[in-house]
Amino acid sequence: MIILGVDPGLATVGIGVLKFDKNKFTTMYYGAIITPPKIPIPERLQMIYDDLTQIIHTYKPTDMALEELFYNTNQKTIIAVGEARGIILLAAQQNGLDIDEYTPLQVKQSVVGYGRAEKIQVMTMVKNILRLDKIPKPDDTADALAVAICHAHSKRTNLIFKIHQ
Amino acid sequence: MIILGVDPGLATVGIGVLKFDKNKFTTMYYGAIITPPKIPIPERLQMIYDDLTQIIHTYKPTDMALEELFYNTNQKTIIAVGEARGIILLAAQQNGLDIDEYTPLQVKQSVVGYGRAEKIQVMTMVKNILRLDKIPKPDDTADALAVAICHAHSKRTNLIFKIHQ
Repeated sequence: MIILGVDPGLATVGIGVLKFDKNKFTTMYYGAIITPPKIPIPERLQMIYDDLTQIIHTYKPTDMALEELFYNTNQKTIIAVGEARGIILLAAQQNGLDIDEYTPLQVKQSVVGYGRAEKIQVMTMVKNILRLDKIPKPDDTADALAVAICHAHSKRTNLIFKIHQ
Repeated sequence: MIILGVDPGLATVGIGVLKFDKNKFTTMYYGAIITPPKIPIPERLQMIYDDLTQIIHTYKPTDMALEELFYNTNQKTIIAVGEARGIILLAAQQNGLDIDEYTPLQVKQSVVGYGRAEKIQVMTMVKNILRLDKIPKPDDTADALAVAICHAHSKRTNLIFKIHQ
């Protein structure tokens, strides 16, 4: 299973691509798509679409995982993130990826083992689980890797559950 | 100028395509893209993208006009509309359309001549301006035609203003 973890946004889209095979992670790629605030929104959306499509074609992920959108940010932010999210879902759908969403609680629970974990604990665990030299920057990238790890754990759990049924 | 007016939504995308030439409107197409609530959101977004792209290829609009998103709806709705909006902006951008947004106030002012006009007044004026037999259904379609009319008026005003400068 190759998992594309995404942390959606208009200015910054965090990206992490992980291979998960025999309970072992291989980090294939991580980074962020950055769009300049001064250019019109439709162009920024197209940049996100083009870059993400390129990443999908390069690493051929089978699954995409992303966090459910927080509801407590301001409405202007929500619309911009919503627009970016639409683009990201479209690119994944067009390429036949299985798409799953997780709550922040599920991600923390899965990565740290504790649903109320602090952000720095999540980041540190991402670094440790993936045996990286340091915590990936920006935070959006680390968040994207976190939700990809969460997806791998979730699929593994489902599989074990099915075997034991 | 061929104007694609759009009223974005996840369940219903209102569409109107108008030709505006020598101060005269020709209605080229109107209708709505409907996506079934039971299928996953990424598939619904792809339906919107595919249908809208098809409409753009068929009628070759030069401009797209849409309403700025209301901020007073609930947050769950805003995210869904935001996702659909992102797709619509992408499809227009990919096909080189000029994109403009208008507030509900601007649309009412432009179509009825009065910014606080009731919805039914806007719908009736859309019917009259375009010389249609009846008010287009669903409301989203009439709204899409209204914002397209607003865009035509706005561009004409800008042009007159430039000539008189």
